[in-house]
Amino acid sequence: MSEHIVSAYSDELEKLSADLMRMGGIAETMITDSCRALSANDLALAQVVIQRDPEVDAIEADVEKQIVSLIARRQPMGHDLRLILSALKIAGELERIADLSKNIGKRALKLDDYVSAEMRNAILRMSRPVSRQLNQVLDAYGSADPNLARDVWASDDDVDQHYNAVFREMLTYLIEDPRRISAGAHMLFIAKNLERIGDHCTNIAEFVFYQATGEYLSALERPKLDQV
Amino acid sequence: MSEHIVSAYSDELEKLSADLMRMGGIAETMITDSCRALSANDLALAQVVIQRDPEVDAIEADVEKQIVSLIARRQPMGHDLRLILSALKIAGELERIADLSKNIGKRALKLDDYVSAEMRNAILRMSRPVSRQLNQVLDAYGSADPNLARDVWASDDDVDQHYNAVFREMLTYLIEDPRRISAGAHMLFIAKNLERIGDHCTNIAEFVFYQATGEYLSALERPKLDQV
Repeated sequence: MSEHIVSAYSDELEKLSADLMRMGGIAETMITDSCRALSANDLALAQVVIQRDPEVDAIEADVEKQIVSLIARRQPMGHDLRLILSALKIAGELERIADLSKNIGKRALKLDDYVSAEMRNAILRMSRPVSRQLNQVLDAYGSADPNLARDVWASDDDVDQHYNAVFREMLTYLIEDPRRISAGAHMLFIAKNLERIGDHCTNIAEFVFYQATGEYLSALERPKLDQV
Repeated sequence: MSEHIVSAYSDELEKLSADLMRMGGIAETMITDSCRALSANDLALAQVVIQRDPEVDAIEADVEKQIVSLIARRQPMGHDLRLILSALKIAGELERIADLSKNIGKRALKLDDYVSAEMRNAILRMSRPVSRQLNQVLDAYGSADPNLARDVWASDDDVDQHYNAVFREMLTYLIEDPRRISAGAHMLFIAKNLERIGDHCTNIAEFVFYQATGEYLSALERPKLDQV
């Protein structure tokens, strides 16, 4: 290949990576904002989160087109092919994270007056380790760092423990006052959404590790908490 | 390409498609069995569902290896590349369906004695349109039929309506008897899992349509029910 073509190709790979980082940045904001909206009962902020989701969908669609075009024109092999196929998967995971955050925003709009401050705070507390996971896995992706990816992957148990604790805590609030049942059901789903965002971060960590090493992290058996 | 090579290539594509159909068949059984286990309180059957999940994961991992190898060796373009990349996505969706069914099986094991027959039946009723969706979308995939895929895609509102009805019905059972709250929370998640299986079937329908036509179904705006 001439130097000119090689450089155009590497520009294309960089554009792909930059687009994924942009998706990741929006998804990160969406998690934080949706949980802030929920804890402060800020309905306008919840709307902002909901309205941001189509932007992520549009970047994902564009990333997919770039990938089809890259494979067809560049016929990548080995490391490059791994990189490109993982990018396809990572884009899918980020889209899911944005979608789950949007769902938290939608539920924040539906809560009635029976939700207590403790219930709102439980979610805010749980959102912090989840945001941190996404932040770290994006760092791992940006720096192609398999060790950092492995750390994120191994830290998913923290999120699961948080989830189990929040789940039990919510049930006690519902039993205390059954008028909270409707809002409480939304809160349980919100906690579950955060737990699933954690799972998607773990999946991204696996793809980053695979991109960098060609090995599967999931082949190493991670002790998985039994979930409620 | 010699006739020999072309035939080996088309054998490889057929193997890929056969593996996806096998994944789909197992996933279908897992949905039906998990909901039967739940409605009949058949804990042994719930265990069978849970134990079947690694089989699906193994086929998915194998499908991914086939795809990487196919792209690297055959350098597909146009229709073939579309076919292969959609297969990657469809395998991911089927793995999620199996995982959600496994989760229903796990929750079936955790229900206490406060669950009523009505609660169990509500789930069984909801599982039928969901199973039908998966069955039809596998038919659409097997026969590469974009019209059937579009029908499945359009029928997701039925599942969403069922979900909304079951959600509200469950809340009334919990309000009636707050001792049901813990089991009821599991039931709400089970209903949500079925609703998400429906979403994954819709995604598969989109990939089947794309494989067959090169067009995106999601570009057509489908009226989406506002969910509880």
